[in-house]
Amino acid sequence: MKKKGELVSFRPDIKVVDCTLRDGGLVNSFMFTDQFVKDLYYANLKSGVDYMEFGYRASKDMFDESKFGKWKFATDEDIRAVVGENDTGLKISVMADVGRTDFKRDIAPKSESPVDMIRVATYINTIPSALEIVEYCNKLGYETTVNIMAVSKSNDADLDDALEIIGQSCADTIYIVDSYGSLYPEQMRRLAAKYLECGEKYNKHIGIHAHNNQQLAFANTIETLTMGVSYLDSTVSSLGRGAGNCPTELLLGFLKNPKYNITPVLKFIENDILKLKEEGIIWGYDIPYLLTGRLNLHPRDAIQFTSEHRTDYADFYAYLYDKDSF
Amino acid sequence: MKKKGELVSFRPDIKVVDCTLRDGGLVNSFMFTDQFVKDLYYANLKSGVDYMEFGYRASKDMFDESKFGKWKFATDEDIRAVVGENDTGLKISVMADVGRTDFKRDIAPKSESPVDMIRVATYINTIPSALEIVEYCNKLGYETTVNIMAVSKSNDADLDDALEIIGQSCADTIYIVDSYGSLYPEQMRRLAAKYLECGEKYNKHIGIHAHNNQQLAFANTIETLTMGVSYLDSTVSSLGRGAGNCPTELLLGFLKNPKYNITPVLKFIENDILKLKEEGIIWGYDIPYLLTGRLNLHPRDAIQFTSEHRTDYADFYAYLYDKDSF
Repeated sequence: MKKKGELVSFRPDIKVVDCTLRDGGLVNSFMFTDQFVKDLYYANLKSGVDYMEFGYRASKDMFDESKFGKWKFATDEDIRAVVGENDTGLKISVMADVGRTDFKRDIAPKSESPVDMIRVATYINTIPSALEIVEYCNKLGYETTVNIMAVSKSNDADLDDALEIIGQSCADTIYIVDSYGSLYPEQMRRLAAKYLECGEKYNKHIGIHAHNNQQLAFANTIETLTMGVSYLDSTVSSLGRGAGNCPTELLLGFLKNPKYNITPVLKFIENDILKLKEEGIIWGYDIPYLLTGRLNLHPRDAIQFTSEHRTDYADFYAYLYDKDSF
Repeated sequence: MKKKGELVSFRPDIKVVDCTLRDGGLVNSFMFTDQFVKDLYYANLKSGVDYMEFGYRASKDMFDESKFGKWKFATDEDIRAVVGENDTGLKISVMADVGRTDFKRDIAPKSESPVDMIRVATYINTIPSALEIVEYCNKLGYETTVNIMAVSKSNDADLDDALEIIGQSCADTIYIVDSYGSLYPEQMRRLAAKYLECGEKYNKHIGIHAHNNQQLAFANTIETLTMGVSYLDSTVSSLGRGAGNCPTELLLGFLKNPKYNITPVLKFIENDILKLKEEGIIWGYDIPYLLTGRLNLHPRDAIQFTSEHRTDYADFYAYLYDKDSF
C-alpha cells in the first residue's frame, strides 16, 4: 500500500462528513432546536465540510414520533425547511439502518429530494439486506455507502467475504466503523490496508467512522487518511454516542486543503455546543467509555453508568471484565 | 528501524514513569494534600508503575516557598515522609530544570537519598548546562535523563547536534518532549526513529513525554513505544499543565505485561482525582489547547484564556494566529 500524501500536501479526494446531528442525536434523542440545526448547516457550509448528515431515515411505524426529535426520521420536508434547495457545495446525507427503515416507502427519487447520499449501517450478517437498500437507492440516483459496524468483533475471513460482496455491489463507498472505540492505530492501519485493497480492486472510496473511547478517534482518522482513506466522519466537539467521535475541529486543523476553515466551527461551539453542555447533555471521553473500549464492548453499560452519575470505576471495571469473560 | 514487539507481546524494557505530581503540580502550584500523595504512591505501587516523579528539585533561593506546595522542591526529607526507605519495586525520580536548581547544594549522594533518578529538563541551547547536572548526579550514583523540551520548535541540524552531544554524555535516557502537544503521529515516529538511532549508537534508553493538546498524547506514546521507545511518561487522568499528558489509565490498558494493573489507578481517580475536579482545578483537553497545539505555541495563552472562563474561541484563534504569524 503506497502512502498517499505528505503532511503538507492536500488531496482533493478527501471528504469530511459531518455526523453531528446523526451520531449526536443518539445522545439527546434527536431533540435539537431548529436554531442549532440551522447554525450547524451554515457552520459546515462556511468551514468547507463536504457532507452534512441530517440524521436517520428511520421508519415512523417502528419508532414513536413522540419520543424522538425529527432528525430520527430526517424527512425530505424537514431537511428542506433548513436548506431550501441547498444550492451549495455542501452535500447532504441521511443514514438508513438495516431493519429500521421503510426505504421503499420513505425514500423518494433523488430528483425529488434534497438528499445526495444514503448511508447504510449494517452488521456483517445483515449485509445482503444492506445491499438491497443500496441497490434500490442507487437506482433512484443517490450516492451510497455501506458502513460495516462493530468491525472489531468480526474475524478476518468474514470480513474478507463481506468486502468481496460489497465490492461487487454498486455501493460507492465502504466504511470502516470502530463502533466500540477499541481499535489501536496499528490495528486500524491493518484494517485500512484491507479495505483499500478492496477499494482499488472495485473502484470504491473507503471511509472511516471512529469513536473516541480511548482518545484515538482523531489519531485513527488521520493515520488511515494518510494511507488513502478519504471519507472522514467527524462531529463538532465529538458530539456522539458515548465517548463521541473524531472532533471536526481537530480534523479541520489537520487538513491542509485551504478550502477548510476551522473558524466557523469554533463559533458554532461557542454559540451552540456550549449550550447543550449547560443543559446537562453528557457525552465525550470519560473513564467508563475507556473501559468498554478497552474491553471491546458496546458502550451501553458505560452510557447507563454515566447517566446514573456513578463514579465507582473500579467496581464497574470488575463488572465489565466478568461479563466479558464468561 | 525494526519494529519492537507486537500488540500481544510485552517488553521487559518498558518503564512507565508517573509524572502526576510533577506535571500536575504546574496546575495547582504543587498544593497537593499529603493524603493525595500517599494515595498516589500506593496506587503506583499496586498498579506496577515503574517510576514515580515526586516533583521538581527547585532552588528555594529562586522560588518563594510560601507560594508553592512542597513538591516544587521535593526534598529528600519530604519524599521520605511518604515512602520511608521505599523498599519496593517502584523507583523514585525528581526533575531538575536547568537554571532553576541549586544541584550542588540540594542533591545529596544517592546512598543518602530515597531518589533513584534525576531528570534534567532543558531547551536545546542549554544542553551544556543540563549535562553539567547530569554528570554531577551520575557521579553521585543516580540514574539520569535529559529531556529536550519543545522539540517541535527545533530544526533537524540542531537536534542532530544535540543528540550527538547527549549521546556522548553519561545520561542513561534521552527524552522526546512534545511540550506544545503539536506533533502528529507521523512526525513523532520520525523523531523517534532519530532518537532511537542515537540510542542504539550510544546505548541509551529513549523516552517520550507527550501533551494532549490535540488528543494525541496516548496515540503518540503507543506509536513510538512500538518502535522501541521505552520510558513512557504518563499522569493519572492526564493531570498536567494545560491539556495534560498521556493518561496512565489508557497506557496501562494498552500494555500487555501482566505486571501492570489498571484497578488501583481507577480507585485513585475515584477517591482523589475527582476531588481535585470538585475543588475547581481545571486541566485537560479543551478547545484553547487544541488551538495552541495546532499552531505549535506554548500553552500559556490558553491557560490564561481558560482561567478567565472565556469561551470566545474564534477570537482567541484569530489572536493566536496573528501573534504567531507576525
